[in-house]
Amino acid sequence: MSELKNDRYLRALLRQPVDKTPVWVMRQAGRYLPEYREVRAKAGDFMTLCSTPEMACEVTLQPLRRYDLDASIIFSDILTIPDAMGLGLHFVTGEGPKFEHVIRSSADIAKLDVPDMEENLGYVMDAIRLTRREIDGKVPLIGFSGSPWTLACYMVEGGSSKDFAKVKGMMFDAPEQMHALLNVLAKSVIEYLNAQIAAGAQSIMLFDTWGGALSQSNYQQFSLAYMQQIVEGLTRENEGRTVPVTLFTKGGGQWLEMMAATGVDGVGLDWATDITAARQRIGDKVTLQGNMDPCVLYASPDRVEQEVASVLAGFGEGNTGHVFNLGHGIHPTVDPENMLRLVDSVHCLSEPYHQSQN
Amino acid sequence: MSELKNDRYLRALLRQPVDKTPVWVMRQAGRYLPEYREVRAKAGDFMTLCSTPEMACEVTLQPLRRYDLDASIIFSDILTIPDAMGLGLHFVTGEGPKFEHVIRSSADIAKLDVPDMEENLGYVMDAIRLTRREIDGKVPLIGFSGSPWTLACYMVEGGSSKDFAKVKGMMFDAPEQMHALLNVLAKSVIEYLNAQIAAGAQSIMLFDTWGGALSQSNYQQFSLAYMQQIVEGLTRENEGRTVPVTLFTKGGGQWLEMMAATGVDGVGLDWATDITAARQRIGDKVTLQGNMDPCVLYASPDRVEQEVASVLAGFGEGNTGHVFNLGHGIHPTVDPENMLRLVDSVHCLSEPYHQSQN
Repeated sequence: MSELKNDRYLRALLRQPVDKTPVWVMRQAGRYLPEYREVRAKAGDFMTLCSTPEMACEVTLQPLRRYDLDASIIFSDILTIPDAMGLGLHFVTGEGPKFEHVIRSSADIAKLDVPDMEENLGYVMDAIRLTRREIDGKVPLIGFSGSPWTLACYMVEGGSSKDFAKVKGMMFDAPEQMHALLNVLAKSVIEYLNAQIAAGAQSIMLFDTWGGALSQSNYQQFSLAYMQQIVEGLTRENEGRTVPVTLFTKGGGQWLEMMAATGVDGVGLDWATDITAARQRIGDKVTLQGNMDPCVLYASPDRVEQEVASVLAGFGEGNTGHVFNLGHGIHPTVDPENMLRLVDSVHCLSEPYHQSQN
Repeated sequence: MSELKNDRYLRALLRQPVDKTPVWVMRQAGRYLPEYREVRAKAGDFMTLCSTPEMACEVTLQPLRRYDLDASIIFSDILTIPDAMGLGLHFVTGEGPKFEHVIRSSADIAKLDVPDMEENLGYVMDAIRLTRREIDGKVPLIGFSGSPWTLACYMVEGGSSKDFAKVKGMMFDAPEQMHALLNVLAKSVIEYLNAQIAAGAQSIMLFDTWGGALSQSNYQQFSLAYMQQIVEGLTRENEGRTVPVTLFTKGGGQWLEMMAATGVDGVGLDWATDITAARQRIGDKVTLQGNMDPCVLYASPDRVEQEVASVLAGFGEGNTGHVFNLGHGIHPTVDPENMLRLVDSVHCLSEPYHQSQN
């Protein structure tokens, strides 16, 4: 493997000094880029795009050609595991992900097994291996998975949901059944992420998209406990370097201390959480990732720069411990020029915050 | 007016001793009740239901016939103000509210005026007057409004939105324009709520449905500041009694202290906020309303009762300062029997928490 030329992102996650605040953006390979839409059209359906390593590699690299990003994230979907378990993932335009088979009973859960990583999910590892070759050490490559609770939401609901009636019905009425489901998912996520690390992923993101739909006590029992298992089960070293782990619970701003206590290296913040307050709460334990409101990218480039300045000032002095990102994925209809301004202003405006201590 | 026979809800909001924890439920008059669906079908469209005082009164009273609730809330919609401003509110099945005319420019905003309360919104006051007569002092009647920011979201987006692209674009790019819009809305809400109080509303709820979509600093500037104006502008006394005000920002659990500092009597909690922690944070200043996960009503009646017990225990000892509610509106597909168990268990299980001090 080529030597890593830019390790700013990995260093910041390990709270080592950096010259500038590293930046990457959730969903940076995505629909707002015309070159992505071209590949997506060629692929036909979304799962073909995910499961064809050459295509997944190509769209992973696209944003790096336009922007001076400090990390890349492998193009894939959080629902690859339930698909590999045989649930039949497909995407309906305008409606998001759908499963052909849904999980509603103990019998459904009993049939689920940890998927064979190379046989059923080998396409993800292939995409990682190919991307690591093509990226040629420019920036690190992030691997990822959905959290067990988030996967369970889709598997029980059969797709997206506004109120989580079915999955919460199961959680409240048959908690032991829900725990059985979350257990097999946690085991699968551990194997999946370790396979990604073995294939070349240099950092790991755990996306807990629906953890914020829970009450605090249910979050602890049904989401956080399983993410804790995962953090403990990961091989956090590869190629002689630490593989840092970042946990992001959308809507979890009230539970930052609990997330930091899992032993992760980074905690993702959505934009509802004040980054100054978050740093006071957990900044001595973990690196903070975030947290600009993605809707700022609907405004003018100057306004984008102003907001970047405000997030950087919000984090404040100190030469590490912050990875700049949005507080959620980039929206599909923003102007790619605004993303350019975002990335460049993070680097340009963050330098003074790092100089004094370097 | 008949004398108020049950003032448990008003007393709890003013932190006076009560014998049992009062309970009401957001959207308690609604689609989960077959008798509501009957009236709704007769009305034809939703706005006819809202704007016909006899019908609005009838559906307001329906849940009181089934359940031993401690408060009623006038049946209406949060979007009556923009409709009265001439935006043409209508409801599309499965898509929610839509406006015929949307607000996108300074010129659009300059055309907006505070609506004439009796001419354009008299149907709400008529419904309140009629309901007060019909309810015959059984329980207090709550009046309500959407927050200025929440109304602005619908007026700029033209309906519901997933990402608030347009309203946030305006907020970020043309903040003075957004402030002009919020100003006329705040003035309108003050007049509207004072008219509701004059018509007989005995308590006020301010629903800040979309405040939680903002960052902390934008929440303070674009939502909270206008709610503060409203709290200060309300006539908080009528018929010789205090008219308590409750503020509910969905997703605002990180900002409870700021909400309490507006001078409201009650702060609504969604279910992501731990009620024990919330009481420690602001329980010496305001009454807490909430906060059971509405999805518990998809579970069995016994599980509902268990969760009621858990919320009551979470609030803890002390003979006042808690109004039991869900952390969000009741879902339209729950079993009405579960609502019965909810209301009865709140009364039954809360008695011991109040006895010691009475």
